Amino acid sequence: MAGTDSSKAVVFRDSPAIILVEPQLGENIGAAARAMANFGLWDLRLVNPRDGWPNEKAVAAAAKADHVIGRVQVFETLAEAMGDLHLVHATTARNREMFKPVIGPDVAADAMVSAIGAGRKTGILFGRERWGLNNDEVALADAIVTLPVEPAFASLNIAQAVLVLAYEWRRAALKDAPLPFAADEGEPAPRGQLAGLTEQLGEALDRVGFFKSPDKRPGMMNNIRSMFARAGFNAQEVRTLRGMVAALDRRHERANPTRVQPDDDAGSA
Amino acid sequence: MAGTDSSKAVVFRDSPAIILVEPQLGENIGAAARAMANFGLWDLRLVNPRDGWPNEKAVAAAAKADHVIGRVQVFETLAEAMGDLHLVHATTARNREMFKPVIGPDVAADAMVSAIGAGRKTGILFGRERWGLNNDEVALADAIVTLPVEPAFASLNIAQAVLVLAYEWRRAALKDAPLPFAADEGEPAPRGQLAGLTEQLGEALDRVGFFKSPDKRPGMMNNIRSMFARAGFNAQEVRTLRGMVAALDRRHERANPTRVQPDDDAGSA
Repeated sequence: MAGTDSSKAVVFRDSPAIILVEPQLGENIGAAARAMANFGLWDLRLVNPRDGWPNEKAVAAAAKADHVIGRVQVFETLAEAMGDLHLVHATTARNREMFKPVIGPDVAADAMVSAIGAGRKTGILFGRERWGLNNDEVALADAIVTLPVEPAFASLNIAQAVLVLAYEWRRAALKDAPLPFAADEGEPAPRGQLAGLTEQLGEALDRVGFFKSPDKRPGMMNNIRSMFARAGFNAQEVRTLRGMVAALDRRHERANPTRVQPDDDAGSA
Repeated sequence: MAGTDSSKAVVFRDSPAIILVEPQLGENIGAAARAMANFGLWDLRLVNPRDGWPNEKAVAAAAKADHVIGRVQVFETLAEAMGDLHLVHATTARNREMFKPVIGPDVAADAMVSAIGAGRKTGILFGRERWGLNNDEVALADAIVTLPVEPAFASLNIAQAVLVLAYEWRRAALKDAPLPFAADEGEPAPRGQLAGLTEQLGEALDRVGFFKSPDKRPGMMNNIRSMFARAGFNAQEVRTLRGMVAALDRRHERANPTRVQPDDDAGSA
């Protein structure tokens, strides 16, 4: 989805560190950096990346997330990489039979937002592409985060696991923040304009003999009022509709005054 | 994250169709299929894929999401692709200044879950890698879905946009469903076992003269009780701790009965 507003500067909020343990493919490191940038994360830490660092493929896959790639820190051990953190979540799709809480990304995000709000630093661990985190690594975390995946197809690409956690963090952190843009609903039409439209339409329909009999008119006009009310037209739309009605109406004024039935009218419109 | 349970069969729930409009890269189609499979979606529709269909690169990138790839439907127009749907959301990162609701993925997911519950069919539109959906295409949708991205870095890879929507749908659809696995908390220790541990520890500490003076003992024992209660040990952990205390205790029985101060004890442990 295109839409980056390059006039806006990246905001560096206090946010969780993303720690990739022994990532194998530069493409995944770069895609993870891009996913982080999409949701406002910027602290990316690598433990023993297989192909070293810097990594050209990572830079390419990061799609210009330079503010993340440029800040990457590399560590030899996971213990060092998480040394400054207070709350650490380990992502895994496998049950580790450890005495450790297992939570979803939403609960993890809420916990991290609270911790950050209390001035603590948080991080999320992601394992190797091949076999994830080993138990010694999971044991270092406060809780296990697992995604509500389809059990028969539970294997997520690392960058996509990062994306879900980053998305949930931002959702929790900016709960009351507006979306990047809001609906453009125009100027809502005051009821008087709607009434004017309905009245004009009714008169036009009278002229073409739309109402088979006068006693049917009130009920049908109420149906029309209900339709229009439900549609929630804005002022511009009401003006457009009135113009359409006027145009159709004039056409019938020009036509010879034989009664046109609604079906013919629709057909010839 | 590894963890697919190949013993489990894929579940084909009523779920939203994912419609990719003129996707350019097979890799993205395949990655989208994989993301769908991760969260239980399976109805993938393509409108004029640039490189035709089937697409080898898509199959490779799908990482064995064959149940999605094998069901892909290709259409010439978006109108055909969404012909059977009742509720359609268009994803876009750009404001279209259209008189159309703009909602987040969570709200969209709730709406789709309600619609599906009412027996209606739903779908989500995703645009081209380069410039997304055009306005004529967005106009066909009931609402615009946009992600709470960082405005300065708003461009999501299509597969990742699909992932977020699929994740939110599953979260909304399976609100009360458990995560793939739960915490293995063992058998929680009944308070009596905790009391036994505390008592045993207290006696061992008496033997090494840990409590400088008898009047200090009750308060320090209460601190220990609080620590243990807060830790929430399970039965196995209490057994382990009691074994440790017993071992340390016996060591002092063997040692000559000079009073060992806590510091020495810690130092020699």
